[in-house]
Amino acid sequence: MTKAASRPRYARLLSALPAVVPFVPPEALERRIGRTLKVRIGANESAFGPSPKAIAAMQAASARVNWYCDPEGFVLREAIARRHNVARDNVVLGAGIDDLLGLLVRSFVDPGDRVAMSLGAYPTFAFHVNGFGGKLVNTPYVADRNDPEALGTLARRRRARLVYLSNPDNPTGSWIAGADVLRLIERLPEGCILVLDEAYADFAPADALPAIDAEDPRVIRLRTFSKAHGMAGARIGYAVAPQETVRAFDKIRHHFGVNRVAQEGAYASLGDPDFIAGVVRAVETGRGDYQRLASDLGLNTLPSATNFVAVDLGSTERATSAMKRLLEEEAVFVRMPGVAPLNRCIRVTVGTPPERADFAEAFRRVVAGL
Amino acid sequence: MTKAASRPRYARLLSALPAVVPFVPPEALERRIGRTLKVRIGANESAFGPSPKAIAAMQAASARVNWYCDPEGFVLREAIARRHNVARDNVVLGAGIDDLLGLLVRSFVDPGDRVAMSLGAYPTFAFHVNGFGGKLVNTPYVADRNDPEALGTLARRRRARLVYLSNPDNPTGSWIAGADVLRLIERLPEGCILVLDEAYADFAPADALPAIDAEDPRVIRLRTFSKAHGMAGARIGYAVAPQETVRAFDKIRHHFGVNRVAQEGAYASLGDPDFIAGVVRAVETGRGDYQRLASDLGLNTLPSATNFVAVDLGSTERATSAMKRLLEEEAVFVRMPGVAPLNRCIRVTVGTPPERADFAEAFRRVVAGL
Repeated sequence: MTKAASRPRYARLLSALPAVVPFVPPEALERRIGRTLKVRIGANESAFGPSPKAIAAMQAASARVNWYCDPEGFVLREAIARRHNVARDNVVLGAGIDDLLGLLVRSFVDPGDRVAMSLGAYPTFAFHVNGFGGKLVNTPYVADRNDPEALGTLARRRRARLVYLSNPDNPTGSWIAGADVLRLIERLPEGCILVLDEAYADFAPADALPAIDAEDPRVIRLRTFSKAHGMAGARIGYAVAPQETVRAFDKIRHHFGVNRVAQEGAYASLGDPDFIAGVVRAVETGRGDYQRLASDLGLNTLPSATNFVAVDLGSTERATSAMKRLLEEEAVFVRMPGVAPLNRCIRVTVGTPPERADFAEAFRRVVAGL
Repeated sequence: MTKAASRPRYARLLSALPAVVPFVPPEALERRIGRTLKVRIGANESAFGPSPKAIAAMQAASARVNWYCDPEGFVLREAIARRHNVARDNVVLGAGIDDLLGLLVRSFVDPGDRVAMSLGAYPTFAFHVNGFGGKLVNTPYVADRNDPEALGTLARRRRARLVYLSNPDNPTGSWIAGADVLRLIERLPEGCILVLDEAYADFAPADALPAIDAEDPRVIRLRTFSKAHGMAGARIGYAVAPQETVRAFDKIRHHFGVNRVAQEGAYASLGDPDFIAGVVRAVETGRGDYQRLASDLGLNTLPSATNFVAVDLGSTERATSAMKRLLEEEAVFVRMPGVAPLNRCIRVTVGTPPERADFAEAFRRVVAGL
C-alpha cells in the first residue's frame, strides 16, 4: 500500500514542534524499573486523599456517568462564585488548570506573540505556549523565588501578551506577597494579562492572596481541586476572569469536557472546609518533618507554602544522582526542577506519616552514598 | 479603574468567531422550564447505565483520585489495542470523541484549510473546525443518509484536508456499508484524512465496520465509551491512528487530560462484553417500540443503527412544535437536527422501558395537539 507508506501533512504549528512531553509519569517510571513504587511523592499529589464527602459524591456520580455533565457547570460555578464573592459568570471550569492554561493561551496568543515567565516555571504552561506558536521570554528565579519586578520589566520590554506567575510557586514552593502581585499587575503593558496560577492557594499565607476585582481585564486567576482537595486524577479546576472573557472562552472551550464525577466531587469538597483545613495542617507538619530531616543531613530546604519541599543537594550532579538512586534503589518517586539554578534541588511532596518515614530512611541511605 | 474597563485583546482566530454553543444541555432546559425533566432522552445517553463492573471500578478509583491518571494510559491502551488487533502505539486516548476531534483539527488544519462534512452532521466537529480557522465545505444528506460519493467528490474538488463521516450516523441513525467507506478512502485527494467517527459502532451491523489498516495515513478512526458503554459523563474515547500520528499528537495533547476514574471504568467496561451485548439488545427492542409508536401515529421513522430513532414529523414547523411541547408540557427532553431536510424530524434516544412508556404517552398527546 503506497498510500499507507506516505506521511500525513500536519498543521504548520504542529510541524514546528519538537517531540517533548511535559512530565514522565510515575507509572512510566514503574514500568522502567520493573517494580511498583514504594513511595509516590513526586507529583505534588495530595497524600491525604479527597474529602470523604467528595468520595461519596463521586461514587454516587459513578453510577450516573451514563449522563453527560452539565456543560454550563451551573451548580458548581454558583458555589465557587459564592466562595470568591464574584458572579457565576466570572467563573469558568476546566479539566484541571492544565486545560485552562491551554484555553488561555489559545484565546490570547497569536503565533509569534511573546509570553513571559520565570525560567524553569511550570513546564505545562510552556508546552501550551509553544503548542500555539507563542514565543516564550524568560527571566530567572532570583534567590529561588519568582522576581515579579523583573517579570514586569520583561513584559514591558518585550510587549508580552501574557505573564505567567505561580503563587505560591512550583517548583520552588516559594511565595510572594499579594502587594507584589498587585504591583506587577499595575506594571503590565497595555493589553497584557497576568495568568495567576494559584494551584497551591489553600496552603498559602493569607497575605499572598490579594483581593483582585474579577472584572479586572489584566488578571485571570486559576485554582484547582488537584492539590489540597486531593482530586488531581478527577481533573477539575477553574478560572476567575471578567465575564466578557468567560463568554469568549465559550466560543472554543470543550463544553462537555469537565466530567460529571469531578463536578460532583468538587461541589462536595467545597462543602467540607474542615477536611481541607485538616489537610493544610497535616501538610504543614509534613513540611516540618522534611525540613528537620534535611537539616539532620546537613542540607538546606527552600521555604515552602505548598504541599512539597525543595531540598537543596548543592549541585545538579548530586540532585540528579539522589533522584536516580531514590528511584532505582529505593523505589521512591520524587522530581527535580529542570533548569538551573533550581536543578540543584529535589522536590519532595509531603506524604502521609508512614510515607515520610519511608522516605526519610531511603533518603538517609541515598545521601550517605552520594 | 480605567484599565478594568478596557476590553482584552483576543487571538485573531477567537476574535473572528461568533458566540455559539454546540448544544443546549438538558440541565439548562430544566432551569428554563423550572422543573426537573421527567424523561431525558435527547442526548443519546445510554439509559442502561455503565456496566456494574465499570461502576465498581470507578467507585474504587474515586477514592484514589488524589493521584493523577497515567498520562500514557498504558494499561487501557493495551486492552484497546488487543481488541482492535493493533499496536498500543496506534491508540490515543481522549476525554471523549469531542476532545479527539479538537485534537485532530488542531493537528491537521491550518487557518483557511478546507474540511468536508455532510451539511447537518455533528455540530461539535464544525465547532472545532471553525475554532481553528478551517473552512467548512458541505454536501447535503441524500435520502437522509450521508453520501460518501458526494463527500469524496467534494473533498477532491475543494482539496479538503479532512473529511468527517459519522458511521453509523448522528443525527439520522443511518449507516453506510463498510465497502462504501473503503471506496471513499480510496477517492480522497492526496494528504486528505478521513475522520471516521464510529461512536455508535457497538450498535452497527458488522458490515458497516470495515477492516482498516491502523497504519493507513488516510484514516483516523474514533470510538467512545459514551454510548453503548454508558459512560458519557466520564469523558473517555479513543482514536486508532498510525503510530507516527499518535506520536505527533503527543506534542500537543493534554497529557493528563483523561481522568483516572474514566480510565479505570473504561478498562473494566471492556472486560464486560456481555453487559454491552445486553445493552445492544435492549436498544434494539427500544428502537422497535419507537418505530411501532410512530407507525401507530401515522409517522415514519428513519432506519437506525444507533441508540436513537429520528421520527419524521413531516415539516420543520411540526418537528419544532413537537419538541417544544414535549419539553414545556411534558418535561420530556428530545432534540432535533438543526438543518434541512433533517429538521423535519425529532431525535429520540432509546430509554428504559418505563421511560419509553412515559415518552409514548407524552408523544401521543403532543402529536394529537399538533
